[in-house]
Amino acid sequence: MVYRAKPNLLGGDYPDDLKKMSSNELDLLSYEIRDFLIDNVSKTGGHLASNLGVVELTIALHTVFESPKDKIIWDVGHQSYIHKILTGRIDGFSNLRQYGGISGFPKREESSHDCFDTGHSSNSISAAAGIAAARDLAGEQFSVISVIGDGALTGGLAYEALNNVGISGSKIIVVINDNGMSISKNTGGLSQHLGKLRLSPAYLDFKKQVKKTLKGIPGVGENLYSGIEHVRDSVKYAMFDGALFEELGFKYMGPFDGHNIRDLIAAFSLAQNSEESVVLHVLTKKGKGYKNAETSPNKFHGIGPFNPTTGVPLKSAANFTYSQVFGSKMIQLADRNKNVVAISAAMIEATGLHKFSERFSDRIFDVGIAEGHAVSFAAGLAVSGFRPVVAIYSTFLQRAYDQMMIDVCMQNLPVVFAIDRAGNVGADGETHHGVFDLSYLNHMPNMTVLAPSDGRELAEMLASALTLEGPCAIRYPRGEAIDLSGVYGGEYGNILKSKVIQTGTQVEILAVGKMVSIAMEACTMLKSYGIDAGLINVRSVKPLDKEAILEATERTNALVTLEDNVIEGGFGQQVLSLLSDSNIHLPCRVIGWPDCFVEHGEDKELFKKYSLDATGIYERVRDFIERQA
Amino acid sequence: MVYRAKPNLLGGDYPDDLKKMSSNELDLLSYEIRDFLIDNVSKTGGHLASNLGVVELTIALHTVFESPKDKIIWDVGHQSYIHKILTGRIDGFSNLRQYGGISGFPKREESSHDCFDTGHSSNSISAAAGIAAARDLAGEQFSVISVIGDGALTGGLAYEALNNVGISGSKIIVVINDNGMSISKNTGGLSQHLGKLRLSPAYLDFKKQVKKTLKGIPGVGENLYSGIEHVRDSVKYAMFDGALFEELGFKYMGPFDGHNIRDLIAAFSLAQNSEESVVLHVLTKKGKGYKNAETSPNKFHGIGPFNPTTGVPLKSAANFTYSQVFGSKMIQLADRNKNVVAISAAMIEATGLHKFSERFSDRIFDVGIAEGHAVSFAAGLAVSGFRPVVAIYSTFLQRAYDQMMIDVCMQNLPVVFAIDRAGNVGADGETHHGVFDLSYLNHMPNMTVLAPSDGRELAEMLASALTLEGPCAIRYPRGEAIDLSGVYGGEYGNILKSKVIQTGTQVEILAVGKMVSIAMEACTMLKSYGIDAGLINVRSVKPLDKEAILEATERTNALVTLEDNVIEGGFGQQVLSLLSDSNIHLPCRVIGWPDCFVEHGEDKELFKKYSLDATGIYERVRDFIERQA
Repeated sequence: MVYRAKPNLLGGDYPDDLKKMSSNELDLLSYEIRDFLIDNVSKTGGHLASNLGVVELTIALHTVFESPKDKIIWDVGHQSYIHKILTGRIDGFSNLRQYGGISGFPKREESSHDCFDTGHSSNSISAAAGIAAARDLAGEQFSVISVIGDGALTGGLAYEALNNVGISGSKIIVVINDNGMSISKNTGGLSQHLGKLRLSPAYLDFKKQVKKTLKGIPGVGENLYSGIEHVRDSVKYAMFDGALFEELGFKYMGPFDGHNIRDLIAAFSLAQNSEESVVLHVLTKKGKGYKNAETSPNKFHGIGPFNPTTGVPLKSAANFTYSQVFGSKMIQLADRNKNVVAISAAMIEATGLHKFSERFSDRIFDVGIAEGHAVSFAAGLAVSGFRPVVAIYSTFLQRAYDQMMIDVCMQNLPVVFAIDRAGNVGADGETHHGVFDLSYLNHMPNMTVLAPSDGRELAEMLASALTLEGPCAIRYPRGEAIDLSGVYGGEYGNILKSKVIQTGTQVEILAVGKMVSIAMEACTMLKSYGIDAGLINVRSVKPLDKEAILEATERTNALVTLEDNVIEGGFGQQVLSLLSDSNIHLPCRVIGWPDCFVEHGEDKELFKKYSLDATGIYERVRDFIERQA
Repeated sequence: MVYRAKPNLLGGDYPDDLKKMSSNELDLLSYEIRDFLIDNVSKTGGHLASNLGVVELTIALHTVFESPKDKIIWDVGHQSYIHKILTGRIDGFSNLRQYGGISGFPKREESSHDCFDTGHSSNSISAAAGIAAARDLAGEQFSVISVIGDGALTGGLAYEALNNVGISGSKIIVVINDNGMSISKNTGGLSQHLGKLRLSPAYLDFKKQVKKTLKGIPGVGENLYSGIEHVRDSVKYAMFDGALFEELGFKYMGPFDGHNIRDLIAAFSLAQNSEESVVLHVLTKKGKGYKNAETSPNKFHGIGPFNPTTGVPLKSAANFTYSQVFGSKMIQLADRNKNVVAISAAMIEATGLHKFSERFSDRIFDVGIAEGHAVSFAAGLAVSGFRPVVAIYSTFLQRAYDQMMIDVCMQNLPVVFAIDRAGNVGADGETHHGVFDLSYLNHMPNMTVLAPSDGRELAEMLASALTLEGPCAIRYPRGEAIDLSGVYGGEYGNILKSKVIQTGTQVEILAVGKMVSIAMEACTMLKSYGIDAGLINVRSVKPLDKEAILEATERTNALVTLEDNVIEGGFGQQVLSLLSDSNIHLPCRVIGWPDCFVEHGEDKELFKKYSLDATGIYERVRDFIERQA
């Protein structure tokens, strides 16, 4: 990274000032923004590579369009940092993604420039279409722009929207931010199509043409708009084939150099003036301008604090994450059983399947950001006798709710769902917390739902899941896999049944997954306070280990259920149902996340705020028991 | 309908015999199958128009391919009747869709020829891809065919699969059954693309070419396969542009006349011999060969028993269905508020929005079979100040779970979900029962969930929903809207709060929606038996009317909750949670559908079997109360 002279353009009044700046000044601004991003994210952590890739794109967008009148929707949204910098939020970056600080994603409550909250992939074109339809119904005039990555375009939702918008008559602009990769390597016909366009000579031609044309226009910044009609003809050279988009009813333009602000300004101006909906294809480089990130964009996709010079993270990596436990065990199981195959939705590395994919290259299927297809595809493998393991984050698996229900559970197929990032995930916030999975899984007939309390349980559950005759979901948290073998004395017993850690005469806590270790601390506090509290590691949320729970009701005066999931439809309510069905009127308190979208922040802070840390649980259980007395 | 001489080809040993039959015999068979279908469905009811459209297609498929070795997957699946006839299930048709009889959809448990259960749209390509991947991993050789309608192709899941399969190297055959319409009129770039192909001259050329070529082949039936190599060249004329599919990595062939068995056999043979994955575009006519259905395919999409000569239903139509109540009220509300807009996913007529669409043609958006997009699109309208109402069947809305959660609820947007066909729907069976919606809605933060007990409540709830500041779902059953105004004495009160119908000292039943009227009967039986039972019409499942429920606990000895939904995550468990949180240890029994996929059959039979009819509820409440005593 080269530190350049700083004219401090960052202090401008953006986005308005952009329109007054010369092309050179905009270039200088892009350098300053890059420096700022690298400096800041190196301290706070965050999504770096994707933002470095859209510095020029964002500057050009805000130069041509008038936000917030014009609406810019950031698909997924983790690439919105420059947008935030240019819309009055630069001071917030010292607290990026921290509790109370600005979000790493667009948030309507943060700024009028954030017109639609995003976080999950592929929805920006639908949202843009809705906003454009509203505009036309209201007889208003403004541009609606969706900025979407090539990876997100593999999501069926994006296609549904493209298919619908192209002929709707409501104009939108779709900017494809094509960095030739989503988080994992991008596969599919569409990326091949983009690749073909990428290699087209039109791109180079365009640069020459635009430069030639712009020469005749004094002061690009101020006069481009009046000159744009002249540019238009010459730019036609750049309107390449793009048959796929044209067939869906869009005008295709591109590809453009995503790091050339002048070209982008010309291209966006063209799109702005088009009568029809436009797909504007922009080529960018993830991590652009920061060598460490250019070389390893995946490492700098989402990263904690790091040394900006070396790119080395400040905190040493977690010893052994749940994702790694999963990946290692998968290799072992696939070695033993040739029918074990793995399916990922553009997340091979993040879910721990990288080594597996190298070792069993014919038994890993990366379907792109297409969770629904991943699950139905797995169902096809399962009816054919294979043992597919679908590894998807809890929050993203929400996209495949119906496919899990109808294609897998209804046919009672032996598909294993390895649900990573279950529970609260911390800094990524509302759109990323995996706190709904127990609720959406519990009511799926035939589904087995497991949650490990430590790394070894995850490994053993995975092995057991592959022996079941129906579908099985294993949900486990983000981060380091803890080791409770000392607690269990090495005796894990039947992994599909609950494990009594200690009995308690006054109360027993039924804890799920990650909450087991937190509950252990709470139990110690309760004992110090004088309450005889027991603890059961639930393991199987569905089916419930009814016998163990009913046994507990015979030796204790009250139950508490504890889960890293919302209460509605979660584990605790299943226990209440069991007690009701069994005509047992024992006091039972259900503890989990409340019925709201929990904000971003360090996970420890969030657990504390919502009284789900050891102290909070101790206090709640104590108050509950004292209230019974 | 003309009754032809009957050589009784229907009695053959199919699918094997097909391969021995002459072209003329296959044509005759198609006539017999049509007659059989019309006769039978006129007695049992079922999906007629779509099956009449694929008679030749299905005969040709089973002539060329060897089921069950070759795998045929029927997208949606309601067009699988001929497939069932040709795979040994003709005798089952007298009990089609009836309790204990054959299903109206493919079912693996029915036959080895049904390789994948379907019912929801657009998943067949994913399933085919999975089966093909399994085949290639296992080193086996067979064809995998997905038969998918042009409507189902608007679903993003189909695109995710096409995008993925095209370059996967695992060959599949996608037969597009293009009847130029899904259930409602098909919109979108893709259907425009298909339309363009449809008008291409290649189709006529092909017919001539094939006929010319086939002339040289003695006895099409037996010798076509040896002759097919010669056919191939001439058929190349028929391989039209199909750029969209070609760009996704498929070989496109078509369009072919879907009612010409010889052409279809030639086309399927070509596809069978192709090295690459093929999209085979077939043009069919819904209702083909039965004038009544050709003229009104929508009327004969799903139909009850009818007079085969006149096409007139035997039972007079329901007086006024919930769908019609919804449609009428929408018109009234849209008249009053210009911001009210409606969104449908290819179901304008079925959801009761036909008249609305005529009256407010600029305020209705039919997005095709694309539920996810429908919801995110609605979110875009809602952030812009409009009041979108999304009308989708309960079971199909499962496809938009994540979009409801993230795009609507997370932003707390005022989108109204009009959820038709909630609860058990009867004859369509497993894939169509809407018994999960309360469970998937209850845990969505910010969502209001309402259920009307009669038609007037639906209308009033819709009006109220449009005044709320956040999302609201109204779920209502299939069929005739009942009228309980006599019971309520015309006094409906606050429609967002529960309504006490009668108090009871021994037990009070908290009933949701459709279950209210059934519970009234049960209460009468309970009173006759000597149990003083009360009844509350719950109305708002979320938020719970806590005050009313807690008041009830003070005047009665036990509660029973009653819902047309599965128990897990449903209404009853929210009541248990409320009691637990309130430290109330009153006996409470939760009644709803069990944790399984309920089969098809007349809804009354199913309610009876699962003890959810008045008698069943009476018995269960009686036993529950006696057990407490």
